Amino acid sequence: MLGFKTIDYNINQKILKILDQTRLPNEEKYVEVDSKEELFECIKKLKVRGAPAIGVAAALGISSVMHKDALEKKKIDYQEFITMFDNVCEYIASSRPTAVNLFKSIERLKNIVSSIEDKDIGKTLNSIENEAIKIWNEDIEFCNNMAEHGLSLLDKEMGILTHCNAGALATAGKGTCLAPIYLGHERGYDFKVYADETRPLLQGARLTAWELNKSGIDVTLICDNMAATLMSKDKIDAVVVGCDRMAANGDGANKIGTLQVAIMAKYYNIPFYMFVPSSTIDMNIKSGLEINIEMRDNDEIKKMWYKEEMAPSDIDAFNPSFDVTDHNLITAIVTEKGIIRPPFDKNLKKIFG
Amino acid sequence: MLGFKTIDYNINQKILKILDQTRLPNEEKYVEVDSKEELFECIKKLKVRGAPAIGVAAALGISSVMHKDALEKKKIDYQEFITMFDNVCEYIASSRPTAVNLFKSIERLKNIVSSIEDKDIGKTLNSIENEAIKIWNEDIEFCNNMAEHGLSLLDKEMGILTHCNAGALATAGKGTCLAPIYLGHERGYDFKVYADETRPLLQGARLTAWELNKSGIDVTLICDNMAATLMSKDKIDAVVVGCDRMAANGDGANKIGTLQVAIMAKYYNIPFYMFVPSSTIDMNIKSGLEINIEMRDNDEIKKMWYKEEMAPSDIDAFNPSFDVTDHNLITAIVTEKGIIRPPFDKNLKKIFG
Repeated sequence: MLGFKTIDYNINQKILKILDQTRLPNEEKYVEVDSKEELFECIKKLKVRGAPAIGVAAALGISSVMHKDALEKKKIDYQEFITMFDNVCEYIASSRPTAVNLFKSIERLKNIVSSIEDKDIGKTLNSIENEAIKIWNEDIEFCNNMAEHGLSLLDKEMGILTHCNAGALATAGKGTCLAPIYLGHERGYDFKVYADETRPLLQGARLTAWELNKSGIDVTLICDNMAATLMSKDKIDAVVVGCDRMAANGDGANKIGTLQVAIMAKYYNIPFYMFVPSSTIDMNIKSGLEINIEMRDNDEIKKMWYKEEMAPSDIDAFNPSFDVTDHNLITAIVTEKGIIRPPFDKNLKKIFG
Repeated sequence: MLGFKTIDYNINQKILKILDQTRLPNEEKYVEVDSKEELFECIKKLKVRGAPAIGVAAALGISSVMHKDALEKKKIDYQEFITMFDNVCEYIASSRPTAVNLFKSIERLKNIVSSIEDKDIGKTLNSIENEAIKIWNEDIEFCNNMAEHGLSLLDKEMGILTHCNAGALATAGKGTCLAPIYLGHERGYDFKVYADETRPLLQGARLTAWELNKSGIDVTLICDNMAATLMSKDKIDAVVVGCDRMAANGDGANKIGTLQVAIMAKYYNIPFYMFVPSSTIDMNIKSGLEINIEMRDNDEIKKMWYKEEMAPSDIDAFNPSFDVTDHNLITAIVTEKGIIRPPFDKNLKKIFG
């Protein structure tokens, strides 16, 4: 059982609640989203993060805002209502211009609204809410499928290493690569999880360690350079990581540092499982070489979290956001539709080709 | 050419100057050591660090302190002088009880003093200073030998990865694994060095990046989880690291994170060179399994450098100070006496057995 809710929606009160992830790990604070400005802020400032979670928050948030705004204006005709809806959608879409799931959610709400023939505000509000709740439930279901498939690969008392955060905090459900850990815990599995802190942005320390610990799962934080020691002492039985983008041959881009975990796992003969939402698989990309890697600000390495600058201010740094794990290093790909084994090019084509 | 002096001693004025490494990388400040209390403080507070540098600083510092103290007391007989010397030695030895080089230096000064037959304070002060300068020169010479042997393994335009700090800041000379980089630079080699930041204590970011940059060498800082990306893009041609302790079979303990660099280097077929002062090789230890690894305070990972706690305060962490690199992962061992190639058990025995 999760010890927190990344996103929650009260159907009676039409209120969306979002766990403010910018306050973690030091404070567990929930934001009640009661205006489009608040929703915009939550997405823009990364109070809610992770592609699936953003998509769900946008849908439920727009439902919440539309209910409130339509109620406040007592006299409003249907055309005014639709204009208001379009404006809210356009405004929220601009909160994070690179978030694909955000646009997908808004597109679905717009499609529902434009398909309504009976021009009644109350009924349209109902349809918006129903679609938003559908998006929410689909994400929970997606996580449950990840959990079941993933858990079939794990044994009861395994030591499990993870990198970055592909957890419940990034979704409206149990997460992707952490989902089987939560499901196993519910079923009495006794996992021992090791979380890479994940430099430079420390998602492992701030988010993964927090969410597992909060849910009663045994988690130990390590620096990114300590995994080999654990592996050499037989403390790690499996590695689970997420995926940001996968090519048709099974090469997978994920948070910087994933590649070296995969290399170490190969060296120590430890299975390396990549959890890949099928929406992330791009069959038009032949290999990882075609995946463009974003370079980020060097200050993230040199001073972002520190009391004072921890590196000479005038030196160069190298700060890629992702790396590409070669398909040869991946034991199995876990999707919400099932587990894919090598040869990945052939087997990905069978399902997604 | 080094752009700074870790340790300097003025023979005319009998003054020891130490670069205060606790102020790096933000401030380059030198401490003039003019009392035994100041010397004690410099060693205890890690203003001077690294086994060789501590040994040299202790010897030169005791010479400096003895000259000053003997001069200040105008009327002093030889027995009082010897008591004063013994007290200073005992006091300085207690500044860092685990530093072997500290005791070795003090032992050498004591042996010199006790061998003097002509009980003259001036002559004894001279002998102390001569021995201290000898210790200093031997360390510089040791570094020069490391530099020559190491450089024979490197080519002119190599990309070189290093981990932690086995540089000039840890010695009175050019360092151990960074020594060939300085020597190559003097000879017109155009290295491109990548420095792992080296979590949790950030010696790479604070010290290695600083000392290379200060000396005009092209250095780029990376997080410890970024090396695989560089290796996969053919940016790294060789890895150079130090060593804290080596077993008779060539297994080498060094700063946590060294092992995974070695595994990655193996995977990408990149030579991995370990720079091992012969004093560090313990032929009585059969393998790395017998090397005891110190576990350190979890706060180093969870909050030491941070503005606020970057991990949940109540979770476990795992913080080993060193890891052991298996001899199979090492391409060559560089000592001040020459380069040792596999099979290491046999070839180490030939020289050190």
